[in-house]
Amino acid sequence: MNQPPKYEHIPRATIQRLATYLQVLEAMDKDGVQVISSEPLARVCDVNASQVRKDLAYFGEFGVRGVGYYVSYLRDIIKGCLYADLKWKAALVGVGNMGRALLNYPEFRSNNFNIVGAFDCDPFKIGERLYGLEVYCTKSLMEKVPELGIEIGIITVPPERAQRAATQLVDAGIKGILNYSAARISVPDHVFVEYINFFHQVYSLTFNIVSQKR
Amino acid sequence: MNQPPKYEHIPRATIQRLATYLQVLEAMDKDGVQVISSEPLARVCDVNASQVRKDLAYFGEFGVRGVGYYVSYLRDIIKGCLYADLKWKAALVGVGNMGRALLNYPEFRSNNFNIVGAFDCDPFKIGERLYGLEVYCTKSLMEKVPELGIEIGIITVPPERAQRAATQLVDAGIKGILNYSAARISVPDHVFVEYINFFHQVYSLTFNIVSQKR
Repeated sequence: MNQPPKYEHIPRATIQRLATYLQVLEAMDKDGVQVISSEPLARVCDVNASQVRKDLAYFGEFGVRGVGYYVSYLRDIIKGCLYADLKWKAALVGVGNMGRALLNYPEFRSNNFNIVGAFDCDPFKIGERLYGLEVYCTKSLMEKVPELGIEIGIITVPPERAQRAATQLVDAGIKGILNYSAARISVPDHVFVEYINFFHQVYSLTFNIVSQKR
Repeated sequence: MNQPPKYEHIPRATIQRLATYLQVLEAMDKDGVQVISSEPLARVCDVNASQVRKDLAYFGEFGVRGVGYYVSYLRDIIKGCLYADLKWKAALVGVGNMGRALLNYPEFRSNNFNIVGAFDCDPFKIGERLYGLEVYCTKSLMEKVPELGIEIGIITVPPERAQRAATQLVDAGIKGILNYSAARISVPDHVFVEYINFFHQVYSLTFNIVSQKR
């Protein structure tokens, strides 16, 4: 594969919308849709068409005048832009309900993004087999992360154990963390953290429901 | 309680940051922190201090010159702004792994936001008791949603069943949907939908990791 160009200063909101476009284009491709223009694509994604064109313009010019976008081509382009065509290996720390749900989530066990190690500090869980993975002791992160080529850590422990899990993941050499726990964590500057806070969406919903009522 | 003022045109990103501030302020309050200025609050939330001040300014003037913000006061103010001080009842449709994880997620079973009904169409799951709730047939949504005073639907079914679940929830009278399935859904204009797409955060992470490498 050719080295893709280096993009800089892409707003975070653009990345998130591109993830939505990608999801929609993948579904359209499966349904046999071959060509789409920016208006219907925008409608399905709950944005406006000029936003779609602006987001894509960061990466190049992909539409065909009078035709629109070729669905599978645009899907591949966006995959490349998001580096979703690379292979990413993740370690999941905390095999409670949320951890199990993610281990059984097909998109997190795919060829391109795969949870390849499950870890917990509970002696009753260590050694258990879950969805094809043996649960390891979190103390073995130091050895398993480099051995399995893991770059991303997923934290699904209770909030009071989140910082310890983060420190163990960082010490083991991971580069980014998806934090599902409801706690803030501190990590060195070279490690990226993304917080999954379910209330981000809950409050958008409740705020809109109340505002509409009045 | 007095009727709070009506806020309009609050950007979605502001609502999401307020959800983060609220989470952080609640943790600080538990830890006994009484006063905080915008700089350290911003640092913990990974934003800059002027952003914090700008977000709060939509709702009023809450800082005290030379002191900062009173933690518990600001927490209560933000709760009010987000309508997080009201009681919200939710129905969860789909009691697979993700559904079970959410049923067992303390923040979704609290006094202010509570999943009060669990639904599934699998005859083997109907009648089962899960985390204090009996699983009902999705066909009974029509009767249970008004009976239990439910306003929000949570969809945790596989993507191919998401639209059917959405239609059933809308027909039963809910006002907003949190969609955890990896499928887009269509609903009438008066119903709000929030998509929980795990790849929004995954791609922000992978994009940053690759960009930094170069």
